[in-house]
Amino acid sequence: MDANQKKTALRMIPYGLYILTSKGKDGTTAAATVNWVTQASFEPPLVVVAVKADSQPYAVIRSAESFVLNILGKGQESVAYAFFKSVESDAQQIGGQPYRVGRTGAPILETMPAFVECRVIERVEKGDHAIVVGEVVDVGVAQEPEGRPDEAVLSLKELGPRIFYGG
Amino acid sequence: MDANQKKTALRMIPYGLYILTSKGKDGTTAAATVNWVTQASFEPPLVVVAVKADSQPYAVIRSAESFVLNILGKGQESVAYAFFKSVESDAQQIGGQPYRVGRTGAPILETMPAFVECRVIERVEKGDHAIVVGEVVDVGVAQEPEGRPDEAVLSLKELGPRIFYGG
Repeated sequence: MDANQKKTALRMIPYGLYILTSKGKDGTTAAATVNWVTQASFEPPLVVVAVKADSQPYAVIRSAESFVLNILGKGQESVAYAFFKSVESDAQQIGGQPYRVGRTGAPILETMPAFVECRVIERVEKGDHAIVVGEVVDVGVAQEPEGRPDEAVLSLKELGPRIFYGG
Repeated sequence: MDANQKKTALRMIPYGLYILTSKGKDGTTAAATVNWVTQASFEPPLVVVAVKADSQPYAVIRSAESFVLNILGKGQESVAYAFFKSVESDAQQIGGQPYRVGRTGAPILETMPAFVECRVIERVEKGDHAIVVGEVVDVGVAQEPEGRPDEAVLSLKELGPRIFYGG
C-alpha cells in the first residue's frame, strides 16, 4: 500500500467540524475540535466519533459516559482553531465560550448553531483513536438553517488549502 | 427531544458518497451507495461505515469480513443513484460498472477516482444500521486530485436540495 495514495484516498472523505465537550465524574471538563464524526443509526439515533485514545478528552468521556457534539457554523473558524489546543474553563465559560449544562452533565456551548448530546453506549479501542458510539439523548438547533442543514456547518476544507486534521 | 430538531441537527453533518462493495464466501456480490463513513484511526488506518443491519450488503460483509469503499467523484451522481437500488452483477460488471478483484476478494469499481479496501476488525450492532470497523489493507487513487482531496469527492448535498440519505 503506497503511503501517499493512502493519505490522498483517506483525505478524500469530507468532514464537518465540531467542538466535542464532556464533563467527567470528578468535575474535569474537556473540550476539543474534532472532525471524524458520522451518524450511524436512525433508530435509536446513534453517532460515532473517533477521539484520540491517549488524550485528556477521551479520558473524560470514559469517565462521564456522555458527550456533546457542538456543531460549528460557517464563519466559526477561529473557534475551531482555539479548540485545537487545550483551553481553560470555569463555571461560566470554556475557552471563552459560554455554556450551559446538558441533561447528561456535558457542557453545551451557547454560541454554536446546533448541538447533539449523547450517552456513550459502546467504545472500540483498536487504533490511535478510540471509536465512541453515542446514543443521541438531546439536540438543540439555535439557528434553523435556511437551505440544506449540511450547508450550514463549518467544513474542514474551509480552514484553508493545506489544513488537514484527523480525530 | 424535538423530532424536527433531531432531524435538522443530524442532517447538519456533511457526507461524501461511496459505493460499498463486498463479495461473500458463497460468491454473492453486494454493492450499495453509502454515506455514513468516517476515518477512525491513523495507525492502524481504520474507517467506520454504518450499513443497514437488515440489508443484503450487510449480510455479505459479515460473510466476507471485507469490503471496498469506492469513492465517488464529482459528476458521478448517476452512479450514486443507480446503486441506491440493488443491481445485477456478473464476472465483468456490477450495475454496469466494470470491476477488478481486490486483495480481499472484494470488487474494486474501475470508474471511480479512488478506493479504500478494508478487512473487517469489529462490528457493533446496536441500531438499525450496523457499525462496521475496517482496517485499511489497500488503497488506490486513479486520478490524483488537483486541489484538496476532499473537494474531489461527490457530496450528498450535490444530489439536490431535497435529497437526504442515511447509511
